[in-house]
Amino acid sequence: MPELRKDPVTGRWVIISTDRSKRPGDFSRERVVLKGGFCPFCPGNESTTPPEILAYRPGENARPDTAGWNLRVVPNKFPALGIEGDLDRQADGMFDKMNGVGAHEVVIETPDHGETLATMPLKRVEDILWAFRDRILDLKQDRRFKYILVFKNHGEAAGASLEHPHSQIIALPILPKQVVEELEGARRYFANKERCIFCDIIRQETEAQVRIAAENQDFVTLCPYAPRFPFETWILPRRHESAFENSPSTMYENLARMLRTILSKAVRVLDNPAYNLVVHSSPMQENTNDFYHWHLEIIPKLTKTAGFEWGTGFYINPTPPEEAAKFLREAKVTEPQPVFQ
Amino acid sequence: MPELRKDPVTGRWVIISTDRSKRPGDFSRERVVLKGGFCPFCPGNESTTPPEILAYRPGENARPDTAGWNLRVVPNKFPALGIEGDLDRQADGMFDKMNGVGAHEVVIETPDHGETLATMPLKRVEDILWAFRDRILDLKQDRRFKYILVFKNHGEAAGASLEHPHSQIIALPILPKQVVEELEGARRYFANKERCIFCDIIRQETEAQVRIAAENQDFVTLCPYAPRFPFETWILPRRHESAFENSPSTMYENLARMLRTILSKAVRVLDNPAYNLVVHSSPMQENTNDFYHWHLEIIPKLTKTAGFEWGTGFYINPTPPEEAAKFLREAKVTEPQPVFQ
Repeated sequence: MPELRKDPVTGRWVIISTDRSKRPGDFSRERVVLKGGFCPFCPGNESTTPPEILAYRPGENARPDTAGWNLRVVPNKFPALGIEGDLDRQADGMFDKMNGVGAHEVVIETPDHGETLATMPLKRVEDILWAFRDRILDLKQDRRFKYILVFKNHGEAAGASLEHPHSQIIALPILPKQVVEELEGARRYFANKERCIFCDIIRQETEAQVRIAAENQDFVTLCPYAPRFPFETWILPRRHESAFENSPSTMYENLARMLRTILSKAVRVLDNPAYNLVVHSSPMQENTNDFYHWHLEIIPKLTKTAGFEWGTGFYINPTPPEEAAKFLREAKVTEPQPVFQ
Repeated sequence: MPELRKDPVTGRWVIISTDRSKRPGDFSRERVVLKGGFCPFCPGNESTTPPEILAYRPGENARPDTAGWNLRVVPNKFPALGIEGDLDRQADGMFDKMNGVGAHEVVIETPDHGETLATMPLKRVEDILWAFRDRILDLKQDRRFKYILVFKNHGEAAGASLEHPHSQIIALPILPKQVVEELEGARRYFANKERCIFCDIIRQETEAQVRIAAENQDFVTLCPYAPRFPFETWILPRRHESAFENSPSTMYENLARMLRTILSKAVRVLDNPAYNLVVHSSPMQENTNDFYHWHLEIIPKLTKTAGFEWGTGFYINPTPPEEAAKFLREAKVTEPQPVFQ
């Protein structure tokens, strides 16, 4: 008998197929493979991107938009939102609209076209997290913005249009619906229990140890109780913190370590899958609060199509999170050498 | 400047790219093509499906599970939910679950493997709608069910695993989250205005005539103001009716006509796209109400991947609905001959 499970935060019910559950080899997914061709993000091609907003450069080279960087942040050449102008909220008959004002930036994670978050030196992964933080803190000063979305599409199947390792940052003048729902769910739980729902999840899951995929001193990685997708995975800080950018600076190294570990495990178990990585954090106006707990969500793109879910918001997940967590937990990975030039 | 638009029902903001908007030829979609092979839904292969629940047969032949039918409804051979048993709602620590009890049926729409809703005789399309109604009325008698989801995945890219024309019916013991959101939005609007929000949308859109794709005596087809997807299209009955199955029987012919017309236009404009079709209707417990207005939603699968939307619930739509509606409105289609053997 399949099981219906309710996500405790959003209240969404999902079907978990417990009978004929899909194991990693059962998905007819596309492996991520490099195809090559001209890359605007590779060193030497700096002039093909808009001028950099931020860069980490070792040693003496401080000339912007030239080679020699470890990481660059540039405006998206084809931004979804425009940075200039007022919101100009207005009615359109019975409808509501505003100007698409916002920021859309690209974090070029490494000069090395061929490495990934799962294979790069730890310090590089940590630098990417610092770049997220630096950009969030800067964008927060713009009072037009309400939410900053930080995400990564890895592989064409997950929506990446360029293969050079990169993440994206979008500053929005509104709260995305899914953010509102998560916040409201967490707020409702707090109103009732006077505890953070994510703190409670961490406590229950680390005791039960059935949906835990990996742990370290500061972070817990688990497959959530009612996941929409097979092998959906969340990385949560053990200590309650409402916003990503407010985390104590000592945490970023352990987050980098956890992220690289879990992605290495996913590569091994799921044969180099495409995935989406999304930072879930508090909106700018409620930056410090007791009810919301920032975390990362990783969704491997395993099912080739999922048409019906779009239209209905109703999810059928063929892999129970207990099995996904077990596969990930037991996957042996060799940590790359912690060397950084 | 792109535009941010708010869906009046759910309150979801979407980005509409108004500058570099994508025209039909700009999408690198997959055309739906038939591949052939053994088909369990073709006449003569009735024994390869579970025994039929309902069939429409012309003339004298009344023997179930034999050839000679115009339409068959059978249980899904690999159901997402099990029909037997109690819900057995229970806690799982801080989480909630219940048995996956429900019905999962397949409507085999025609004996002809190669025809589609866009090409089949009108009477056949109408019969499919009648079959939806017959099955909904029957399933409604089971008090364990709260919602009946009627949908169609057309083409592999939209999630269809078999190419023979078919739709699916899933009876659920819970309300899917998206249904709850739509209902709540409509209820909120009604509480405020004492009018149905969809009736208001129909009134405004038919007056403005910028997002209307097609109209007939009983139905209006429009591209909604804040669509998540390019060429997303809704078919709404002009007269307020909260549930699909409660529509006056005279309406089904005009709905069939409208459905065939709009899908023919989509085939022409978008080069035979894969799509999802979903019936949006009131839950069984609130079958007759003033605030919700049943309708069909059609979502062509045009973007090969849309990874980031999954993770964020935030949508960037590259085609304004005004342009989509214009393409559909102006597409010339020759109606198939209204002949039915």
